[in-house]
Amino acid sequence: MTPEQSIVASAVHSWKLNLERADKLFSSLSEEQLLTEIAPGKNRLIYLWGHLIAVHDAMLPLLGLGQRLHQELDAAFLTGADKSVAELPSAAELKHHWDEVNSALLTGFSNFTAGDWAQKHTVVSEADFAANPLRNRLAILLSRTSHVAYHLGQAVLAPN
Amino acid sequence: MTPEQSIVASAVHSWKLNLERADKLFSSLSEEQLLTEIAPGKNRLIYLWGHLIAVHDAMLPLLGLGQRLHQELDAAFLTGADKSVAELPSAAELKHHWDEVNSALLTGFSNFTAGDWAQKHTVVSEADFAANPLRNRLAILLSRTSHVAYHLGQAVLAPN
Repeated sequence: MTPEQSIVASAVHSWKLNLERADKLFSSLSEEQLLTEIAPGKNRLIYLWGHLIAVHDAMLPLLGLGQRLHQELDAAFLTGADKSVAELPSAAELKHHWDEVNSALLTGFSNFTAGDWAQKHTVVSEADFAANPLRNRLAILLSRTSHVAYHLGQAVLAPN
Repeated sequence: MTPEQSIVASAVHSWKLNLERADKLFSSLSEEQLLTEIAPGKNRLIYLWGHLIAVHDAMLPLLGLGQRLHQELDAAFLTGADKSVAELPSAAELKHHWDEVNSALLTGFSNFTAGDWAQKHTVVSEADFAANPLRNRLAILLSRTSHVAYHLGQAVLAPN
């Protein structure tokens, strides 16, 4: 394994570790538990889970891996605040979307070389990328890994 | 910038971004605000801050960057739970330790090549590292970046 292969594999591994923790936490919750607020007056667990799915779904086009799969989740979980949409997907539906989106990402990642990760993501222009080569695909992966960890830290606070 | 340089710089940048967010949040808190619990019955903000300092301090030997600077924080913030130690450092002392430890880390990082990041950290044996080359220094950086994000997600929940 070359240094660059080792480094890229470590970044993907860190993503996977955080996803596995989130999967373990959210997938085990009942419909009722999903409606628990993480702290008084704060987001509910179902919102955090749907929010992660929507954000990960948006990574597909951002990384050049294809079209979004579940843009219909945005109103309830991304553009809107928690409780702004009354009818939400069931736990089983969220689990299905979660697995589907994360699986599509991992399939895409498995085909990326270190050079692919260092390429620009799709929302930055060639000129801006030339000025700042850190606006690359790996930066998206790292940012979204921190994002999972951020909300995971919140989700574990919810009362049982 | 080669792909491996771009990738390593992105990982260090992600660490810095999370540190800056944490610095902005914790450094602005009064002594009184630091004693606020992030949610009823949960850790206080001062514990999260001291915990991050202790964990980052422990990264120095783990990454081969030198001895620990503030092992005296462990009892209150790492090995013990919140409120297990009555007398805690002041906000000014914590800010000083926080800056000192993170500055020592960044100085060390600035001398690491991609090859250095792909090397084993100091707590894994040569044999275990040969079996799993992902037990490298970069994995420590990524894990601790997620760790900052995790507690940052919690800290923002504290009532004002």
